[in-house]
Amino acid sequence: MQRVYLDHNATTPLRVEARAAMIDAMDVSGNPSSVHAEGRAAKAIVEKARAQIASAFGADGADVIFTSGATEAAALALAGRGLHGAAVEHDAVRAWTVEDLPVDAQGRVSVAEPANSTLQLANSETGIVQDLPTGIAMTDATQAFGKLPVAFNWMGAGMALVSAHKLGGPKGIGALVMPRGTDLVAQIRGGGQEMGRRSGTENLVGIAGFGAAAEAAAGDLSDGIWERVAELRNILESALEAGAPETIFVGKGANRLPNTLCFATPGWKGETQVMQMDLAGFAISAGSACSSGKVRASAVLTAMGFDDRTAASAIRVSLGLGTTEEEVLRFAETWLTKEKRHRARVA
Amino acid sequence: MQRVYLDHNATTPLRVEARAAMIDAMDVSGNPSSVHAEGRAAKAIVEKARAQIASAFGADGADVIFTSGATEAAALALAGRGLHGAAVEHDAVRAWTVEDLPVDAQGRVSVAEPANSTLQLANSETGIVQDLPTGIAMTDATQAFGKLPVAFNWMGAGMALVSAHKLGGPKGIGALVMPRGTDLVAQIRGGGQEMGRRSGTENLVGIAGFGAAAEAAAGDLSDGIWERVAELRNILESALEAGAPETIFVGKGANRLPNTLCFATPGWKGETQVMQMDLAGFAISAGSACSSGKVRASAVLTAMGFDDRTAASAIRVSLGLGTTEEEVLRFAETWLTKEKRHRARVA
Repeated sequence: MQRVYLDHNATTPLRVEARAAMIDAMDVSGNPSSVHAEGRAAKAIVEKARAQIASAFGADGADVIFTSGATEAAALALAGRGLHGAAVEHDAVRAWTVEDLPVDAQGRVSVAEPANSTLQLANSETGIVQDLPTGIAMTDATQAFGKLPVAFNWMGAGMALVSAHKLGGPKGIGALVMPRGTDLVAQIRGGGQEMGRRSGTENLVGIAGFGAAAEAAAGDLSDGIWERVAELRNILESALEAGAPETIFVGKGANRLPNTLCFATPGWKGETQVMQMDLAGFAISAGSACSSGKVRASAVLTAMGFDDRTAASAIRVSLGLGTTEEEVLRFAETWLTKEKRHRARVA
Repeated sequence: MQRVYLDHNATTPLRVEARAAMIDAMDVSGNPSSVHAEGRAAKAIVEKARAQIASAFGADGADVIFTSGATEAAALALAGRGLHGAAVEHDAVRAWTVEDLPVDAQGRVSVAEPANSTLQLANSETGIVQDLPTGIAMTDATQAFGKLPVAFNWMGAGMALVSAHKLGGPKGIGALVMPRGTDLVAQIRGGGQEMGRRSGTENLVGIAGFGAAAEAAAGDLSDGIWERVAELRNILESALEAGAPETIFVGKGANRLPNTLCFATPGWKGETQVMQMDLAGFAISAGSACSSGKVRASAVLTAMGFDDRTAASAIRVSLGLGTTEEEVLRFAETWLTKEKRHRARVA
C-alpha cells in the first residue's frame, strides 16, 4: 500500500515549480560573482529569486540575505547578542539565547523586552502561533512562511528567519530577512557576497528553487488552499478524540498552523509510536525532526508545563498540500488500533 | 558564434553524473534527521555522498563534514585560531589568518611552523601548487581536488577544505575534512547534524551532486584526462608568447595546475581585457571570481613581488575538461589582435 507522509513540518516534498527552476539553473554555468555574460546570467537567477522571496514574504525593499538554511540564519542573527528567548524555540535559536521567557499552558510566550528578545511565529511541534509584540528583535518565521499570511514589512520585527524546504523548496537554503541597511557582522567571510554579509559562492540551484517555491507558496496561500488542509486536520483530530477520548491534544484552544496536530498519550512513548506507525506505512514524528533521532521528552511540551511522561509521549502529525481525507482517516484508524493494543498491554 | 568558457577555476559546469544524482535526490522527500523510512532514504543519500567524497579525496576513514561551501568550511576550521597564512590564500582563508608567511617570486610560500599555519594546495589565480610541509594545520584543497591526484590520508594535514563546484558539482556545497575525532567547535548550532559539528538540515540535492561529481572527477583523474588539458594550456601559452613576447607568464617555471594560465601585460588593465574578451565571446577572469567585480590589483601577484601596474594587468584563463584546441587557438588569435590594438593605442 502507498505510504502516507504526514511529516511536512520536518520537510515537505519539492514543488514542481521549484524542481523546474532548479533544473533550469543547472544549465547556467557561471559564477554569480563573475562579470562576464555567464556570470551575469547566474547573478540574474539569484536576484530573481531574491525578489520572489521578498514579495512572497511581504518584504519588498527589505534585505534578503541567503544562507544555507534557517539554522545558519539564526547563528548569523543571534550569535553574540544574548537575546531573551523561550524554551519553545527551535534548537537553532535556543543555541544563542538567554532562555528566560515564560511559556503558559497554551504555549503562549510572554515577552517583557521585545527589543532584546526573539520569538517564533509558529512552533514546529505544536503549530501554536504567537502574537508578535511590536519591535521584537527577531522572529523565526520558518514554519509560518508559506502556511500563514505573513508580511515582514508589517510585522514590526527587526529580523526574520526563513527556510526553503518547509514550503516546497529544496533543503539547505534559507535566508535572513531584515530592513535594508541593518547592521550585521558577517560570520562566513571571504569573497564579500551578499553585500559583505555572507560570503561564499551562492547555492544557485537551491536559490532558484527557493524563489520558485516561495512564489508558488504565496499563490497557494492567497488561493486559500490551506483552509482545506485545516479541515482535514480537524477531521483527524475529531476522529482521534472520538476513538481515544483520553488523548491530550496540545494547543487545541490556541491559534495553530492549519496543518499541525500534536497529541500525547501519557505512558506510550512517542518514539515507539513513530516506529510502529512507520512500519504500518505512515511517516510522522516525535518532537522536531532534528532531535527525533534521540529519545527524550519534547522541550516544547515540558516548557508548556506537561510532565516528562506526557511530553515523552507526544507525536506530531503534520499535513501537506497533497494530503487527502482518505489518508488522514486511514491514519486515524491505524493509530487507534495501536492505541487500543497499547492500553490492553498496560492495563 | 558559440561562446567559449575559459573560467573553470571560478566555477565549472555541472557534470552529467552530478545532474542525474541531483534530480534523483529531488524525489526523496524525507528529512535525513527523521527516523522513518522517508528520513532513512534521505540519510542514505547523504552517507553515500560522504563515502564517495572520502574515497575520491583519499580520505577513507576521515570525517567529511558537509558545509555550504569551502568558504564556510574555512570559517569553521579557522575562526578564532589565529593560524599563520600567506597573502596568496583565498579571501575566505585570509579572513581568519595572521598574514605573515613569506611568498617568493615563484609563488612558493615558506612555512616556519606548520602546526600553526595554513597553506593552500593550489592557487586559484596562478594555478601554482605548493609542497605541503608535514603537519600543516590546514590546507585549502579547493582548486586541487579533482585536478591533481591528492590523498588526504597521506597529506599530513590537520584539516582540508574542499568544494563541489570546482570539480563539476553544484555551487553552495563543500566540506571540511579531518582525521576522525578531531576537536571542532561548531559555529552553526542547533539540531546537531554532522555529529554536532555543523547543524542545519542537510542540502540533500547539493550533497548528492557533490558525491557523484567527486566520484566522476576521481575517475577522470585516474584516466589521465587532465594531461590533454595541460597540453592545450601549453599550446595556448606558446601561441600567446609567440604573438606577444613581452607578456609575463606568472608561475611558468613553477608546478602548476594543468588547466590554469595567468599572464600579465603591464599597463593594460585586467578588467578591461575581461570586458573586451567577454564582448568577443570569451569568459575569463581577472583575479579570483569573488573579487572580480572590483577593480583592484591581484593580492596574489602583489604578494609574489609584482608591482601594482603588472598585478592589475593580470588575467586568468582556466580550461575545463571540455575545452578544445579550436577554442584555445581562437582565444589566442582574438586576444593577440586586441593586444596589438592596445599596444598601438599606448605607443
